[in-house]
Amino acid sequence: MTGDLRVTEALAEFLAASRWEDIPATVRQEGVRSLLNFVGGALGGCQDEAVSLAARVLAPYFGTAQATIIGRSERPDALNAAFLNAVSANVLEYDDTHLATVIHPAAPVAPGLFALAERRRVSGAELVHALILGIEAECRIGLAVMPTHYRRGWHITATCGIFGAAAASGKLLGLDGRRMAWALGHAATQSAGLVESLGSMSKSIGVGNAAKNGLAASLFAEAGFTAAERAIEGRYGFAPVTSDSVNLALITDRLGETWEILANAYKPYPCGVVLFPVIDACLELRARHRPAPQQIAQIVVRGHPLLRERADRPVVATGREAKVSIQHSVAAALLQGAAGLAQYEDSCVADPAVRALRAKVAVEEDEDVPVESARVTLRLDDGSTFTEHVRHGRGTPGRKMSDDELDAKVRELAAFGAPQVDAPGLIAALRAIETEADVARIVRMTVPAR
Amino acid sequence: MTGDLRVTEALAEFLAASRWEDIPATVRQEGVRSLLNFVGGALGGCQDEAVSLAARVLAPYFGTAQATIIGRSERPDALNAAFLNAVSANVLEYDDTHLATVIHPAAPVAPGLFALAERRRVSGAELVHALILGIEAECRIGLAVMPTHYRRGWHITATCGIFGAAAASGKLLGLDGRRMAWALGHAATQSAGLVESLGSMSKSIGVGNAAKNGLAASLFAEAGFTAAERAIEGRYGFAPVTSDSVNLALITDRLGETWEILANAYKPYPCGVVLFPVIDACLELRARHRPAPQQIAQIVVRGHPLLRERADRPVVATGREAKVSIQHSVAAALLQGAAGLAQYEDSCVADPAVRALRAKVAVEEDEDVPVESARVTLRLDDGSTFTEHVRHGRGTPGRKMSDDELDAKVRELAAFGAPQVDAPGLIAALRAIETEADVARIVRMTVPAR
Repeated sequence: MTGDLRVTEALAEFLAASRWEDIPATVRQEGVRSLLNFVGGALGGCQDEAVSLAARVLAPYFGTAQATIIGRSERPDALNAAFLNAVSANVLEYDDTHLATVIHPAAPVAPGLFALAERRRVSGAELVHALILGIEAECRIGLAVMPTHYRRGWHITATCGIFGAAAASGKLLGLDGRRMAWALGHAATQSAGLVESLGSMSKSIGVGNAAKNGLAASLFAEAGFTAAERAIEGRYGFAPVTSDSVNLALITDRLGETWEILANAYKPYPCGVVLFPVIDACLELRARHRPAPQQIAQIVVRGHPLLRERADRPVVATGREAKVSIQHSVAAALLQGAAGLAQYEDSCVADPAVRALRAKVAVEEDEDVPVESARVTLRLDDGSTFTEHVRHGRGTPGRKMSDDELDAKVRELAAFGAPQVDAPGLIAALRAIETEADVARIVRMTVPAR
Repeated sequence: MTGDLRVTEALAEFLAASRWEDIPATVRQEGVRSLLNFVGGALGGCQDEAVSLAARVLAPYFGTAQATIIGRSERPDALNAAFLNAVSANVLEYDDTHLATVIHPAAPVAPGLFALAERRRVSGAELVHALILGIEAECRIGLAVMPTHYRRGWHITATCGIFGAAAASGKLLGLDGRRMAWALGHAATQSAGLVESLGSMSKSIGVGNAAKNGLAASLFAEAGFTAAERAIEGRYGFAPVTSDSVNLALITDRLGETWEILANAYKPYPCGVVLFPVIDACLELRARHRPAPQQIAQIVVRGHPLLRERADRPVVATGREAKVSIQHSVAAALLQGAAGLAQYEDSCVADPAVRALRAKVAVEEDEDVPVESARVTLRLDDGSTFTEHVRHGRGTPGRKMSDDELDAKVRELAAFGAPQVDAPGLIAALRAIETEADVARIVRMTVPAR
């Protein structure tokens, strides 16, 4: 640990001082792409059981109608809207990923910005700027506490997402450095979310809270509610408390020169990101060799230790669990030749053929295989074996989604969860958001016209 | 760690199955006393700057008027009321303490119960029963993760309080074992609060969230929102993630036979627990010998090393600092014959006579003096000395506050923060709560009549 660094203060000063003119064009473009992917995810997820149930639970406590829930008809207060939009955007496991930390950056950060944009006039440039800064804050803090933060059991999208939400909302509120530091401090003391919750609806509460409590952190700070000055790096601050491998310099080194959003990738499959190269390999094996399911003796998946740690789940009962199951993803991709939303429905999980094939999947870990790679070997009953080695899974930084692929993904998601929304019009408006004078106009396009 | 214990499930089953008839009379009485102390704390704290500021920040997001804020006029939704009442009850550092964990048990647990009691008819027995169970859950979970949980930097009143809130609210909602386990799971993944935040307003957000998010946890569970089955003990569950000294058996051993609420003590003075025997000795010396301040040459305080470690603070500038100062507490108690809220106001800290006497206090540590004891020696200019040895400070488990002392404390707190409230009437109603058919009647007594 670097004893004397005042990183909370330094990060807050950077966030408060940053100007739109300081943001390079490539970074701005990635901000727009992240936002587009976020809106797509929320459109796709907005009718998910977890979202509908959460909306029903919270409805009796909604405040006055202030903000949109993407794809839905309710209009709650800004804080509850932030919660529900974050849940929607993340619930299908189809969001964006900052691979070095495995944070899904936009879901906790963007909802507070959308909610604020309906309470005061916010331009597209202001919103994209705040989103970029929020993602910068959450990913840098994540880098500083990885790898032991996640290994210990912290669900990093929630635990670090709240910093991103506080930073981004604080930027839109125009907080000065001192108040921005308080916002980060309120985020630190509210940071929560356990890996144990993954695979149950409870995960969504962590992600929703990151958005909602991060927004609240900035509102408390704006009003002068004080926080610890060294909430991240202090002896009992977020970093040492939640990590055994703190590297504080990663929060401040070359701040404003490098941009973490450039490492943000968009999921091509609605499941855990560690599974992407595995799925690519399975789809390739199927396309090439067309193995008859009953002739498959074993499928050996060899990957980075993180793959096994996150997704070694041979027995699954629901689509939700299947999204973090190597065994299910391999079986479904090999049998059905796809890994889309349909392959992670409960019905596919219950399919006897898929279930039978899941039992034949073996997982081996290999420290020398990078996390964006995987090697899948198919052994047939006749003794023949076929191996596919994927170096860069689709949707990983080495093989990012193109703009066209991203637009197609948003259209697929909209068709799945919110078919009444004008997806092409919304996509066009988001692509042009940098010149939009009032983002509320775009936010309103995310719900069916009334 | 005890590998195979399913403590989340076992605790949930116990909570769901517990009947009022199972609760011994002494335990019920302590439940009433804890509730009384909670209401007193909230009345005393309700006008504190942190409470007023938080109410102002959250007001634009309040839902429909559902619940009382003790001592105040706003009526927010149940969740926001739970937040604000927990902040009030804890903000003066005058609440209850479960010494083995240093949890202040009632502040996170009681607010959700009060809020629910205004949404559906709840009897006094039901509410006290739920409070007792909530305190049992939070303190047992706290015992299982101490001492390294706090040492690592977790503010245990917030991090474990949320389990108590979820358990207690879940009991009032009548959750079955399965849903109660989900409520505990939602509590686990929302558990947060850093020691770093102590000393700033940010601490209050942690305590408020424990109450609010714990209530929400039970509401989500009631609706069928699923959680991890082993949220506490699982590999990535709350206990191993937040503690390096997990003892899960402490959660389930003799459950229903021993009761942690019997170890709950109520602060007789609004300051650090280690100061209680020191203050007792000073009050006794003053009452017995009436020393003239100008004749005092020196005051020697002899106590456990922890006393010096926590509270050797000769120079203090604010009431908040004075709450952890031996020197200030001794001077104020000897001069003013009291150690109440008035003695920890900034004005008392600045009083020249108090300041002069603070300079005459010497602190000696002695490993043989237990932490609940102290020896104070007064030396006068004429050479005479008087010594007072207190074995069990008031408000420590060996010398708990009597009912009369507790009632007097509640009256003092009400006079300080909510003088318009009929404190004697409220105290009488709370003392008789076990036979009250509708607690909402008592809750309404905590605000000034309109």
